[in-house]
Amino acid sequence: MRNTEDSNLAARATGVLLGRRLANREAESRRIGAFEGVPAMGLDAFGSVAYGPEAALTMLVPLGAAGLAYMGWITAPIIALLAILFLSYWQTIRAYPNNGGAYFVAKQNLGTSMSLFAASALMIDYVLNVAVGISAGVGALVSAMPALQSHALALCLGVLALITLINLRGTLDSGRLFALPVYLFVLSFAAIFVIGIVKALSSGGHPAPVVAPPPIDVGAHAAGAWLLLRAVAAGCTAMTGVEAVSNGVGAFREPQVKYGHRTLAIIVTVLGVMLACVAYLVPAYRVGAMDETLPGYQSVLAQIAAAAVGQGALYYVALITLLCVLALSANTSFVGFPRLCRIIACDGFLPKPFAQAGRRLVFSSGIVWLALCAALLLIVFDGITNRLIPLFAIGAFSSFTVSQIAMVWHWRSQRDGNAAQRRIALSINAVGACATATALIVIIVAKFTEGAWITLIVVPLVIALLRSIRRYYARVEQQAARAQPLALYNVQPPVVVVMVEDLSRLALKAVSLGMSLSPDVIAVHLTHVEGPDTEVEALRDEWEAQVADPARRANRTAPRLVTMTSQRRTLHEPLLKIVGKIEAEFPRRTIAVLIPELVKRRWYQRALHTYRGRRLRRRLLAVADPRMTIVSVPWKVDDGS
Amino acid sequence: MRNTEDSNLAARATGVLLGRRLANREAESRRIGAFEGVPAMGLDAFGSVAYGPEAALTMLVPLGAAGLAYMGWITAPIIALLAILFLSYWQTIRAYPNNGGAYFVAKQNLGTSMSLFAASALMIDYVLNVAVGISAGVGALVSAMPALQSHALALCLGVLALITLINLRGTLDSGRLFALPVYLFVLSFAAIFVIGIVKALSSGGHPAPVVAPPPIDVGAHAAGAWLLLRAVAAGCTAMTGVEAVSNGVGAFREPQVKYGHRTLAIIVTVLGVMLACVAYLVPAYRVGAMDETLPGYQSVLAQIAAAAVGQGALYYVALITLLCVLALSANTSFVGFPRLCRIIACDGFLPKPFAQAGRRLVFSSGIVWLALCAALLLIVFDGITNRLIPLFAIGAFSSFTVSQIAMVWHWRSQRDGNAAQRRIALSINAVGACATATALIVIIVAKFTEGAWITLIVVPLVIALLRSIRRYYARVEQQAARAQPLALYNVQPPVVVVMVEDLSRLALKAVSLGMSLSPDVIAVHLTHVEGPDTEVEALRDEWEAQVADPARRANRTAPRLVTMTSQRRTLHEPLLKIVGKIEAEFPRRTIAVLIPELVKRRWYQRALHTYRGRRLRRRLLAVADPRMTIVSVPWKVDDGS
Repeated sequence: MRNTEDSNLAARATGVLLGRRLANREAESRRIGAFEGVPAMGLDAFGSVAYGPEAALTMLVPLGAAGLAYMGWITAPIIALLAILFLSYWQTIRAYPNNGGAYFVAKQNLGTSMSLFAASALMIDYVLNVAVGISAGVGALVSAMPALQSHALALCLGVLALITLINLRGTLDSGRLFALPVYLFVLSFAAIFVIGIVKALSSGGHPAPVVAPPPIDVGAHAAGAWLLLRAVAAGCTAMTGVEAVSNGVGAFREPQVKYGHRTLAIIVTVLGVMLACVAYLVPAYRVGAMDETLPGYQSVLAQIAAAAVGQGALYYVALITLLCVLALSANTSFVGFPRLCRIIACDGFLPKPFAQAGRRLVFSSGIVWLALCAALLLIVFDGITNRLIPLFAIGAFSSFTVSQIAMVWHWRSQRDGNAAQRRIALSINAVGACATATALIVIIVAKFTEGAWITLIVVPLVIALLRSIRRYYARVEQQAARAQPLALYNVQPPVVVVMVEDLSRLALKAVSLGMSLSPDVIAVHLTHVEGPDTEVEALRDEWEAQVADPARRANRTAPRLVTMTSQRRTLHEPLLKIVGKIEAEFPRRTIAVLIPELVKRRWYQRALHTYRGRRLRRRLLAVADPRMTIVSVPWKVDDGS
Repeated sequence: MRNTEDSNLAARATGVLLGRRLANREAESRRIGAFEGVPAMGLDAFGSVAYGPEAALTMLVPLGAAGLAYMGWITAPIIALLAILFLSYWQTIRAYPNNGGAYFVAKQNLGTSMSLFAASALMIDYVLNVAVGISAGVGALVSAMPALQSHALALCLGVLALITLINLRGTLDSGRLFALPVYLFVLSFAAIFVIGIVKALSSGGHPAPVVAPPPIDVGAHAAGAWLLLRAVAAGCTAMTGVEAVSNGVGAFREPQVKYGHRTLAIIVTVLGVMLACVAYLVPAYRVGAMDETLPGYQSVLAQIAAAAVGQGALYYVALITLLCVLALSANTSFVGFPRLCRIIACDGFLPKPFAQAGRRLVFSSGIVWLALCAALLLIVFDGITNRLIPLFAIGAFSSFTVSQIAMVWHWRSQRDGNAAQRRIALSINAVGACATATALIVIIVAKFTEGAWITLIVVPLVIALLRSIRRYYARVEQQAARAQPLALYNVQPPVVVVMVEDLSRLALKAVSLGMSLSPDVIAVHLTHVEGPDTEVEALRDEWEAQVADPARRANRTAPRLVTMTSQRRTLHEPLLKIVGKIEAEFPRRTIAVLIPELVKRRWYQRALHTYRGRRLRRRLLAVADPRMTIVSVPWKVDDGS
């Protein structure tokens, strides 16, 4: 009967959309295993299979058909780097089973500055990933169905809203819901790649394509080291999203390390194998990158699929699931970002609501802010965020590098266990750190004029914001800190001021409550609140008869009635004047202002009453006079039902 | 120092837009005379000069050139009716100097049902007038500048916002601001009409037009009585807005009757003379109504002006001021509607905020609601509200008729003064009532299929709404009515429940306040509010040391500390459970829940804190347990400045 939740329409709608409010004790049953972990956290990595090799091949276009031969040489270091990252994060998850994100690891080993650098780089990366991922997915859909062209932004925002909603329901829900497209995507491309490779091997490396890819021009340029390095760097974008598991370890059920490891292993293996397959099939079937802006554009994966199995059912299943994976790749951010923000907020660098588990035991504030930032980017760039892609690998590689440097420090400071094992672990992380740092520098140099410089401005700004939030909390904490034990020298009852509009039952209830709190009760009646033409009721006689006389007969001090004109038709201005006089009259006493308030329970009641009580309370609270407290005396309007 | 007004940006913006908050004592200086009254209340009537004769002439189109001859016969009864209305409202203003609107007069003489009928007819009329007036003005502007065509709705809403804003500043402001276009309009058309009439008279009734109006077809039909009657009825739309003065008498300075009479006289005289001039000039210069939907359309007034003085400076001044008058004709509604609503609200048939003088001593609620309703109509009809015109005269003529019938009853019940004068007054109102009733019937019959039937549905609905509002207030009043004098049998101090999040200075302040209110203080500390993984602080030992021990040493009952887990991370659910237990433990005691609350004064503070205190207070108020009061203990976050 007391449960006001679900009492109104909005609450009921929230219940339908987000599901019922979960209890803390249900937390364990809401944790995920590897089956849900792979779709929840792997969408970004799997989507990378589409654009990583494509980005590398696009760099090779000036070389023409001769460029295809380099695909293996470009993919090999990427896969090696991926293997190093895998080992590195494997160790990180074991070393920091509660949270192995770059922020936390850097904080433990490198100090606050580096951890904030990693945090802001990663936060920016996550926001960009949402915008870029959705925009790429919707872009692919729109190029397949040109009728939707003019609704691209609306579609982007719709997909964003959907992903946001599902993640507000919980990571478990998103993992389960997205399992179908993700596993279908993996299976269908596995089938295509196996068929393609078998055909290639059985034909001695020169298979006949079912549908031939468009011919590739003879190149005009020779391969240079810088061009190949840029191609590697471009291909490295395939690795973004690998760190998501380390940030999301908290989502796994016990034993968290086991499920974290398993999920990471599946994601990285699938990603690595697919990249290797693409690298083998591209030169075998002579598939090149096409200009996205020209009509007749086909993506690299689409060309490979058509060449290997023709444009049948498998082709369409593969491409449709690829579209879903691209559009939903934002989900990885929705798993990682809120958990990252939570740890940052626990340290006081982000507002406290980010650290609070919401209705469904996920950190709703982080989810909502991520969605808002991404929506803003999508709206500003009108749903076409290609130009943000350069920015986006920088955040990921910054956090990779910081995270691995931190792990090097971690192993250096460790003293227990096998020293040889520690040395191996340390060298893996050291090699990884050098490799990702090199990739980061190449990306920044190569993409500097294309927008990478923006990151170099935004990251310091975010760090400054985080630091200023921390400073603010420190100041508030210092002010609120307990100075001394409870002081009991001033425990006289407060002087009670009761707002009396008329002598209704509600007003008498407030007066009676005031008399139970203190012997000193002053009733304040304001006139001309309605305007200059208000008729003034003769309240004083009634007051004597109904309040003062009964009080005297009960041998109690009769409450005083103060009448005052409200010149400007506000309640708080004359009331604050009266409070000031009372404060002077009763030094060292606190003052309790009693405000009778009608409680409206139906929408039409809300329209039919003035909100004087509520407004007065807000005004008085805003003044925050340390000697004044505000007492709300509720009175329910019976709805007659 | 205590003034929280103007403390933030929004308040300052309001100050700039609406002007400073006026004191009740300034009311007299805000009242208007006839100079401001004519623009404030006359805009609708003056705008009618444009569309009244045009509507009548449009009816005559089937008669062709022969129809022009009837213009005098059609205008004569309209002017006669106008004269009767003038006399009638002249008497009404004198008889009801405080408010002479149809609602009030009908209430005094005919009872509630008729007064509600008049009120709802008039309210609908006012809303329609705003939408139709603005849409007509913007329509004329758009047809002059076709580049604006696609922005018609935005222009309509912009004009509406402007008129709303100016009226929120006060009737005086609107009267002063609109004086220039109104008087310029009257003067320029007076000049045109005088020149036109002089030319016509001097040429023996057949003047040579400076710019000849487009030729008129020879008509195919003969004039029938029904057609002429419909033309009169159509022309009667020119009279809407005449009642505005009677509704707005409250806006005039003392002596109100004198300024009301003067304003009414000016408006009606100008309107009548202009109608007569148009009626004379139309056949003289052979001006006919043109089809508005065809290119090359010119309004009747534009044709007359061009024929009389040519398309020079005077022509353009006249047409531009006409455009302003049309677009601003909505202003009449903004003067009448809020004052009408105010009297209805005083009687309890409309929500109470309608009766409250706002910041600038006008009834802001009525103004805002009028604007919202009109905006809704404009948006629904996409800024083209021609089809609403038939509806709109019905409201006006219904209220004319009711008002005059009421005046007949008024004179019948009068006993003092000169009986012969009363008889004359009575017969004027009786004739007026018959005439307006006839016009009303003709309009309803003629326009029934064009939408007049909608009024017959909407008016009863509005009446039902007004009555249900009254019933609701009666029920609330009955519930709140004082049953007996102050009961003092239960004045034990309340049991105090203090929400304690930690042992900060703020929490200790709340505990100390609680102990000043009652010997029975129970502190409630909820854990796991952040989520299942929250670390639980060891509050109990601290509590003993900082609160319980000092209390015992001061020979006071030590407050109890109750710790409870919030399973669903809400504050109100566990708290209400505890309150339930306390209510059982202490029957007949009230319970005061103390909520410490951080007061945020800067926008960034708002973003950085949780709103737990505020949300908890809202939830507890919504429960409206009659034994529970909520005490807010404010604590200001120092902004460090």
